[in-house]
Amino acid sequence: MQMQEIISKKRHGEKLLDEEIAFFIKEYVKGTIPDYQASSFCMAVCCNGMDAHETAVLTDCMMHSGDVVDLSKIPGVKVDKHSTGGVGDKTSLVLGPLVASAGVKLAKMSGRGLGFTGGTLDKMESIPGMRIDLTQEEFFKQVSTIGMAIIGQTGNLVPADKKLYALRDVTGTVDSIPLIASSIMSKKLASGSDSILLDVKFGSGAFMKTMEDARLLAKAMVKIGNSLKRNTKAILTDMSQPLGLAVGNILEVKEAIATLKGNGPKDFVELCLSAGSIMLVQANVCRTKEEARKILEKNLNSGLAYKKFLEFVEAQGGDISYIEHPEKFDVSKNIVEVKAEKEGYCHEITAIQIGLAAMHLGAGRATKEDSIDYTAGIVLNKKVGDKVLKGETLATIYTNKNIFDEEIRMVKEAFILQKEQPEFLPIVRDIIEE
Amino acid sequence: MQMQEIISKKRHGEKLLDEEIAFFIKEYVKGTIPDYQASSFCMAVCCNGMDAHETAVLTDCMMHSGDVVDLSKIPGVKVDKHSTGGVGDKTSLVLGPLVASAGVKLAKMSGRGLGFTGGTLDKMESIPGMRIDLTQEEFFKQVSTIGMAIIGQTGNLVPADKKLYALRDVTGTVDSIPLIASSIMSKKLASGSDSILLDVKFGSGAFMKTMEDARLLAKAMVKIGNSLKRNTKAILTDMSQPLGLAVGNILEVKEAIATLKGNGPKDFVELCLSAGSIMLVQANVCRTKEEARKILEKNLNSGLAYKKFLEFVEAQGGDISYIEHPEKFDVSKNIVEVKAEKEGYCHEITAIQIGLAAMHLGAGRATKEDSIDYTAGIVLNKKVGDKVLKGETLATIYTNKNIFDEEIRMVKEAFILQKEQPEFLPIVRDIIEE
Repeated sequence: MQMQEIISKKRHGEKLLDEEIAFFIKEYVKGTIPDYQASSFCMAVCCNGMDAHETAVLTDCMMHSGDVVDLSKIPGVKVDKHSTGGVGDKTSLVLGPLVASAGVKLAKMSGRGLGFTGGTLDKMESIPGMRIDLTQEEFFKQVSTIGMAIIGQTGNLVPADKKLYALRDVTGTVDSIPLIASSIMSKKLASGSDSILLDVKFGSGAFMKTMEDARLLAKAMVKIGNSLKRNTKAILTDMSQPLGLAVGNILEVKEAIATLKGNGPKDFVELCLSAGSIMLVQANVCRTKEEARKILEKNLNSGLAYKKFLEFVEAQGGDISYIEHPEKFDVSKNIVEVKAEKEGYCHEITAIQIGLAAMHLGAGRATKEDSIDYTAGIVLNKKVGDKVLKGETLATIYTNKNIFDEEIRMVKEAFILQKEQPEFLPIVRDIIEE
Repeated sequence: MQMQEIISKKRHGEKLLDEEIAFFIKEYVKGTIPDYQASSFCMAVCCNGMDAHETAVLTDCMMHSGDVVDLSKIPGVKVDKHSTGGVGDKTSLVLGPLVASAGVKLAKMSGRGLGFTGGTLDKMESIPGMRIDLTQEEFFKQVSTIGMAIIGQTGNLVPADKKLYALRDVTGTVDSIPLIASSIMSKKLASGSDSILLDVKFGSGAFMKTMEDARLLAKAMVKIGNSLKRNTKAILTDMSQPLGLAVGNILEVKEAIATLKGNGPKDFVELCLSAGSIMLVQANVCRTKEEARKILEKNLNSGLAYKKFLEFVEAQGGDISYIEHPEKFDVSKNIVEVKAEKEGYCHEITAIQIGLAAMHLGAGRATKEDSIDYTAGIVLNKKVGDKVLKGETLATIYTNKNIFDEEIRMVKEAFILQKEQPEFLPIVRDIIEE
């Protein structure tokens, strides 16, 4: 088989054979196909696409390019969730304990990645003592006993994706639904769960800017998962404003604790309940989402979910006195309130602006080498739909850096105020089941 | 400037800025842009194209990536011709002396390249003593005095094309009008002639399989040439059957000699007269093609063109006794006549089949390292439109190899015989002037 012929086929919009896709992945990982052929191939896929079958085959080949985790030793249906990422996304910290408190087994491996604020692993590490490097035995045991564990990726998981993603990043070939879908899904599938819930975000703070694109990606991923025999569903959620109020690692952990105690921001609580309801059905804990939602609401209000979070933190070595007394967490040296210069209804809080500002304040990393200031970030005082009076606080900035005029301006400009009250739009815009 | 942003623009079908194209060529030749970015960029161009302005800028940047020949020391209008290549294409050997005999200055640099049979340089080298490596001084002097010279590419001409072509060849990115057009034209422009005539061939034996594709390529190249201030025209010529009767180096030189003596095959003579007429007008030797054609017909019949060929061969060190006595040329050990198995009119002589057979017989090279048997090849006995009787000779095979059953079959199958006489189609199908 000749790689240039495979490239040429895709360049002319032809459908590839299963064995041609397998050849590409196998030989690329081995190093016998050079980067310059792989990048040309990826660009042909960007331009001419892949159908559902080709995308599933690509994902399957990528998944099997390295280790595949076998979770069958853990009894019951194992469920995983994945978010395409956004600003203020602390969902796993609440959704994990919430569904585990209802009997779901969540065995989650998180990647690191760059971003405006840290990922789930960084948020976990902002809790003193918390480990993300459990051994496989510890991981299995924890999921079996307390029902959940979240760890960093271990072993040689999906080397094809590592190599391809690094290449796509510098060759203008990131932006392709089949390539994004296969990259995400190959990692999820290799992690071994039986069911997967995908939270595909759209809006300025998300990778997908429009709901239409998010829907295409969600559908592609759901198709891959189901064609590879995993029960896979997706929700489309709004990331045109940050999720909840807190953006930044410790700030988000505190918000997660508050939410688990029944005091969470409306949009974030709604997301956790909606996503959790689907996961309970996927895990065969309930027959309907309505039934599931009732259980989850009860567990949130009764403190059961919070109790599960304490178990989870303790099991992974975290100091639970910080959870029980969040005032123990470090606080930034500099705290500044950003005030509104006019009155109006909040129509948008441009998530990407808030995200970039948080990153400048020290909450995220622009390159792998950057270190994170866990205390830095932004807490919103207003959300979309709220009435704002002139001089009222829009948001509070936390940082250990000294100069932040630029960030104050960015945060201020992120708030789009208008005279009329905007129409209410729910955070979960749609559910993709097939 | 970031290469991945330039790639990304083209991936989304946007028009590139002049400085973005210049950046790509400059940094790629320097080696600061890696092959994997260049190949991804080429694929984006394959899929999303380039407009006439972008293509002209790309060509201009490629042309200036190395040496540019300055022919201004040679008085008069210098004309160049370029063929996109085909089977039995010995045109330069006849067209050169023909137009030079009428006062045109032809300063031609030929590339080597692979192919079914050798290129013009190989055909020249099959004449004992003939040099293709003149110094620049010799080259200029010869064009000034006898009106023509054909040499191999010297110096550091268009390094961007050398590097890009090698990459495109292995990354499925050959097949793109803007990339093909800029590759050909950057070399032609760097060779320094004032006017360029392009012979764009179509059909099974040509790079472009259909007249529509050939027209697109011709238009793209004519636009590039004219926008960069060279008088550029193109002809679209039929390569669905081999050009003339002879295919193979010495066989074609002998046919060129016969043609210059007034005994050429009709289609080949017609091509030389049509192309030559346009070149005479481009060189300001005549005002109209009709006037030019009369001069060329006269020079062919009077022996003036043949005399010019002798001067040309002698000037480049060739032994003219071979031209005067073509029977001196070596002849293959094995000569076999291929007979018709049925009668009919010849509708097609599949050029690619004849070309591949000739290459197998030793007339061309599949890889750079292959050596050429100058004596090997095929001489057709019938052309499209001819009546063929059962048992008549279709073609004669020449080779120094022993076994050639496969080649006999290939040659036989190349002749498509049918009951009805086919419609006559002229070899020059169209002229592209802008």
